[in-house]
Amino acid sequence: MKAIAVEPGAGEPTLVERPQPEPGTGEALVRTLRVGVDGTDHEVIAGHHGELPPGEERLVLGHEAVGVVADPNGTDLEEGEIVVPTVRRPPAGGTNEYFERGEPDMAPEGEYVERGIVGEHGFMSEYFTSPAEYLVSIPEELAALGFLVEPISISEKAFEHAFASRSAFDWNPESALVLGNGSLGLLTLAMLEKVYEFDRTYCLGRRDRPDPTIDIIEALGATYVDSRETPVSEVPDAYEAVDFVYEATGYAKHAVETVDALAPNGVGALLGVPEPWEFEVDGGHLHREMVLHNKALVGTVNSHRGQFESAVDTLSQLPDWFTDDLVTGVYGLEEYDAAFETGDEVVKTAVEFASL
Amino acid sequence: MKAIAVEPGAGEPTLVERPQPEPGTGEALVRTLRVGVDGTDHEVIAGHHGELPPGEERLVLGHEAVGVVADPNGTDLEEGEIVVPTVRRPPAGGTNEYFERGEPDMAPEGEYVERGIVGEHGFMSEYFTSPAEYLVSIPEELAALGFLVEPISISEKAFEHAFASRSAFDWNPESALVLGNGSLGLLTLAMLEKVYEFDRTYCLGRRDRPDPTIDIIEALGATYVDSRETPVSEVPDAYEAVDFVYEATGYAKHAVETVDALAPNGVGALLGVPEPWEFEVDGGHLHREMVLHNKALVGTVNSHRGQFESAVDTLSQLPDWFTDDLVTGVYGLEEYDAAFETGDEVVKTAVEFASL
Repeated sequence: MKAIAVEPGAGEPTLVERPQPEPGTGEALVRTLRVGVDGTDHEVIAGHHGELPPGEERLVLGHEAVGVVADPNGTDLEEGEIVVPTVRRPPAGGTNEYFERGEPDMAPEGEYVERGIVGEHGFMSEYFTSPAEYLVSIPEELAALGFLVEPISISEKAFEHAFASRSAFDWNPESALVLGNGSLGLLTLAMLEKVYEFDRTYCLGRRDRPDPTIDIIEALGATYVDSRETPVSEVPDAYEAVDFVYEATGYAKHAVETVDALAPNGVGALLGVPEPWEFEVDGGHLHREMVLHNKALVGTVNSHRGQFESAVDTLSQLPDWFTDDLVTGVYGLEEYDAAFETGDEVVKTAVEFASL
Repeated sequence: MKAIAVEPGAGEPTLVERPQPEPGTGEALVRTLRVGVDGTDHEVIAGHHGELPPGEERLVLGHEAVGVVADPNGTDLEEGEIVVPTVRRPPAGGTNEYFERGEPDMAPEGEYVERGIVGEHGFMSEYFTSPAEYLVSIPEELAALGFLVEPISISEKAFEHAFASRSAFDWNPESALVLGNGSLGLLTLAMLEKVYEFDRTYCLGRRDRPDPTIDIIEALGATYVDSRETPVSEVPDAYEAVDFVYEATGYAKHAVETVDALAPNGVGALLGVPEPWEFEVDGGHLHREMVLHNKALVGTVNSHRGQFESAVDTLSQLPDWFTDDLVTGVYGLEEYDAAFETGDEVVKTAVEFASL
């Protein structure tokens, strides 16, 4: 079967031939439909993130997949069922408490591998196998967009953790600011507007009009904030202090400036993964502001099965026009390299391995 | 009646004569028993914090009080009942949503006054009045230590908010680090050891032995961490990464270093109120570490009635030897100035206005 793999640091993925996998006990065989491409894939391709499976020279990419069960292999799944796989798996040494309680997203480094990212092949191949417990069923009508379930689940987790941090008091958030107008930022903005029903939302980017992401932001009813004119810490003066900030830029100064963008009792969810970077901070101001106004910052990574299930429900509530505008390209295997191209006109892409 | 008041910046409090207050509708008259002294009082005395009541030249100090109801004045209280007053009151303009829902601790600046600190006289006088809703009853056997209820309530709130931030997953904290060996740090350490039953606790200070606070730390079963030998960020290497950090130093670098001291999935509660201070931070590392290990930072200030009620229960569970060692001096009005003296032998002091 064909697969899309990358040699670390090679700079671009290649199409390779691999044996079709055979499901072991408790595993199903899945025929891959579509696999999304995101920033993490680009970091793996560039060699900035990720790890090869032991003894392998290439990593099969892909962690945002949707497929159809080809062989249930004695599991509770049914042939023809549409499924989305979760990403983390137990490490070579075997399972651990995090997987046992269904919270692999809370496992620390070394206690997991990530399919398509760290130490295990991903889903960008015509078939893949997975233990049935890591396959989440989705309705057939969502099959074409099923590759959005994984990124949505990342934000479902971030919302759960951030909102939990405000559960010790009566918190009624009305305004939210998304930092970053990439595909995850735009998906999150749509969730906040259309599903979580925030009254006022903002999305920060650094693009000139005309721009497809600014069009999406405004069509959602949100306000575009140009970071070149309005730094994050000046959002309160230019617009308003917000109850919730969602950081999806990986720009380390944003984590610090988030505290200033927040209204009293607000929370910032941090999701970016920057490299080390030393800079000057008014740490006294930051600390004082967090304390005197009861502010919180919550770092969050990955997601678990329950958050994938929430994501399926969320995906079904996003308007068609939004997903149409968000997904700027779905490419067959013969033109898979187009799915990895970047540019201001590209928002979200996927590779199609098969159609229903 | 006699009261202890301060002229902002005068550097020391003075004994003044004031008219005995008369309770208004819904208010009770309370005869003051004891009022504790803490770091905030010293900041108000030094002129670094606090605000005079409108039109006044002096502020009556004191926000950690216990008293006995002298005149219930038609409220549900009874004469002779032992009560502890909460600290925040609605501002001159009238009440607001935070007070209406019993969460004045979540009110932003301008939406409250604080008795003995910001814009309203405190409790260091022979009598004070208060709306009955802000008076929390305590058992008579706790009367002598009732001035500890307010500081304990500050930590009850911090625990509630910090633990809420970890409620979206299965969190079983075992280890905690308290930054600061002042009276609030030691009270919090005792709560973590004796009431919240953490398995392993640490307390950071910068003192040489022999020292009464180190003796208390070790008698509690905790480990003393000398910050001159082991900076906060090196606690994981020297001891262990901890599940919970409680910051009570007001030293801004500690807020940043807390992220490094935390174990994966841990939370830091920030309570100090530093002045602005610019310094160099590895913001990229900080941000990345919070995200990849699901860490949280929660700022928290003040406390509400429910947390005072929890504090009464907590106080009843603290060992007698601990409160005996913690309270190094209770001084009558004729020697009130001794209660404001500081030094390595002083841990917690109070002024006694009357005894039962």
